[in-house]
Amino acid sequence: MSENTHHAMWEKLNMDLEAHDGLLEVLGKFYGDIYLSQENRLKGAEYLDFVLSEVHGLRIREIQDAKAEGRKVVGSFCVFVPEEITLAADAVHVGLCAGAEAGSELAEQLVPRNTCALIKSFIGFKLAKLCPYIESTDMIVGETTCDGKKKAYEAFNEIAPTYVMEVPQTKSEAARELWKAEVVRYMMEVEKLTGRTITAEKLKQGIKILNNRRRALQRLTSLRAASPAPISGRDALLINQISFYDDPIRFTAKINELCDELEARIKTGEGVAPAGTPRLLLSGCPMAVPNWKLPYVVESSGAVIVGEESCIGTRNSRDLVDESGETLEEMIDAIADRYMKIDCACFTPNHERLDHITALARDLKADGVIHYSLLFCQPYTHESLKVDKTLQAEGIPMLSIETDYSMEDVEQLKTRIEAFVETLA
Amino acid sequence: MSENTHHAMWEKLNMDLEAHDGLLEVLGKFYGDIYLSQENRLKGAEYLDFVLSEVHGLRIREIQDAKAEGRKVVGSFCVFVPEEITLAADAVHVGLCAGAEAGSELAEQLVPRNTCALIKSFIGFKLAKLCPYIESTDMIVGETTCDGKKKAYEAFNEIAPTYVMEVPQTKSEAARELWKAEVVRYMMEVEKLTGRTITAEKLKQGIKILNNRRRALQRLTSLRAASPAPISGRDALLINQISFYDDPIRFTAKINELCDELEARIKTGEGVAPAGTPRLLLSGCPMAVPNWKLPYVVESSGAVIVGEESCIGTRNSRDLVDESGETLEEMIDAIADRYMKIDCACFTPNHERLDHITALARDLKADGVIHYSLLFCQPYTHESLKVDKTLQAEGIPMLSIETDYSMEDVEQLKTRIEAFVETLA
Repeated sequence: MSENTHHAMWEKLNMDLEAHDGLLEVLGKFYGDIYLSQENRLKGAEYLDFVLSEVHGLRIREIQDAKAEGRKVVGSFCVFVPEEITLAADAVHVGLCAGAEAGSELAEQLVPRNTCALIKSFIGFKLAKLCPYIESTDMIVGETTCDGKKKAYEAFNEIAPTYVMEVPQTKSEAARELWKAEVVRYMMEVEKLTGRTITAEKLKQGIKILNNRRRALQRLTSLRAASPAPISGRDALLINQISFYDDPIRFTAKINELCDELEARIKTGEGVAPAGTPRLLLSGCPMAVPNWKLPYVVESSGAVIVGEESCIGTRNSRDLVDESGETLEEMIDAIADRYMKIDCACFTPNHERLDHITALARDLKADGVIHYSLLFCQPYTHESLKVDKTLQAEGIPMLSIETDYSMEDVEQLKTRIEAFVETLA
Repeated sequence: MSENTHHAMWEKLNMDLEAHDGLLEVLGKFYGDIYLSQENRLKGAEYLDFVLSEVHGLRIREIQDAKAEGRKVVGSFCVFVPEEITLAADAVHVGLCAGAEAGSELAEQLVPRNTCALIKSFIGFKLAKLCPYIESTDMIVGETTCDGKKKAYEAFNEIAPTYVMEVPQTKSEAARELWKAEVVRYMMEVEKLTGRTITAEKLKQGIKILNNRRRALQRLTSLRAASPAPISGRDALLINQISFYDDPIRFTAKINELCDELEARIKTGEGVAPAGTPRLLLSGCPMAVPNWKLPYVVESSGAVIVGEESCIGTRNSRDLVDESGETLEEMIDAIADRYMKIDCACFTPNHERLDHITALARDLKADGVIHYSLLFCQPYTHESLKVDKTLQAEGIPMLSIETDYSMEDVEQLKTRIEAFVETLA
């Protein structure tokens, strides 16, 4: 993973070079086992392999170059942060590291032991100086989506100043007003950070760029309805993961190329697994890079994953921002409305999500659903009980998995998932 | 506990008589051990003993009589529900059962295992038909203070229809607007329930009644600054607990009488523990009836409790509603403002709480603080780390306790608390 080329940059970012080299080595091996070992992979996967291999390298260099040109970098942990606004100020918007156990023990100095792996991870990455993204940001944006993150940002703020957006908890008119006020406040903060005024023209452009990214991901989602499955769940997850890191215009072009290839495959009936392989929808908590544990176990257990109902999946691409607005005010309203459609478990009630999962399972011809909750994630663990009931009523089998980033339970997961897959065959 | 007298009433409420008799028997014994065994108790404690002995009996009968007269009953689980509005519609406002393990196993059918004991308890009480309050309510009001309750109300709603108020997560102007809208919405809901129009005159009366209750509790709090401590922490907690059940006018009169007695005691230097006994402030999660475990362990370990920084404590009595408003609109604003002052861990940031704890510890001449978090309560467990840092900087020792309603850890708690108390002596 080109350590030599990038060491000087990482050093400048005040990272822990030795620990980071170790992390990259482990990740490289992990990636080889989980990704490069796949058969019938798409030609377009070369893009994925390249981006992933340079996710801490060339992409960071690009970001540093952007900074040198006077652009600012915004980092976030959640699909609620309106990236349209960031782009409208010519800033770079990236997701921050949160998918590996690195530094988790250090994190327990700042947050309780009973905190989900994702939260411990982002704190750990910062404390252990292992995330070049966070070290490159000019502004970190948190949000009040769950108690765990909401309270963790308070402690995190002491080591990495964090701007927090209030996400409401219901979808009432008053809640939507609060959210709109938060979108406006974010816009003003980004303007302050960048010293640029967000114009209607620039915001329109930001909306278009991100809607196009969403359309490419929607296209990918719908192509996965084909049987045999034309792409592995692992690769599809990786695409969704990369959407948080790579330049959105380049990403969109590359994913559309990859979708062209998928369409050609579908025409010839080619797939990554034989027709008849049980098809599963994953649903629940987000899987940040390099959290590939569950997809790997599932696809090593005789099943193929055909969809991801999560923030790093359909939740982040399903809804477009209405593009008909011409004034700033109209576009801000359109942005506020689009984000209020998100069916995050942070909302109460959140019936939409139950409808979306059922529809997605049907559209993708899934034989079953695996619900994935991070241990101590209260919103998704609560909803897993309701998803189970809903799917049962629809005659769609579901398996509920609660886990974290450790590898200790891989064998146990494999046993449970194999047993579940057998019932579907 | 006068089973014979009330059986017919409980049966009418569709309660599980046998299990409820069992519960009352255990509670009676528990109360005897923890309360009646105390020395130097106040004469005014007779009121507490009587209310507690009839908390499922005569008080429920009063509530049934009120219902027979056409009054409605509102039940809630949180100090955010504006009781002023309930009273203004001539309805009765009560806290619901949430302080015992009863039915907790049943509750795990509806909520995840990793849910705090308080939430499991209120669901368990309903499923096991053990709470005469919930069976008497015409309206149950929940709120979005934490992920656990927010999502639990969704499941609870299926067995006990629950109206949910959205509590914001910050104290921004937009958040305050959301909260005001929720107060207005609650008012309309109560008007609909009761068929009564809430007038300025009635609301003014509701505000006065509750401010007077708060003033009586404030008076109690300030009297506990005396040394030797004139009242035990157990009795003071019980007073706070009873404030959620008894008629507020009667309660206020009785507590003021009790405070008169306390003042007389203080004059003569009489106390419940010798001068020099280490004085502790409890801080953290609410302790609902009959959750007396921690106070009992603390006061059996050579210390005396001089304050409760919790929702069933100073958090619910510290702030008054401004009484200068004359119009409905002015009073609604005053109510919204008063509730927005609450320093619940659901807010981010929540610096006020740190200031309040420090000031309270100083005012009450506490030698140390015991921070109490319910297991899986993320907001308070997160804040315990910050409270610890703050108190350390102020030179006030703190012990952090994380526990639930089970008695399994009593000996372990006793060992830790005795060791802590020894360091203070």
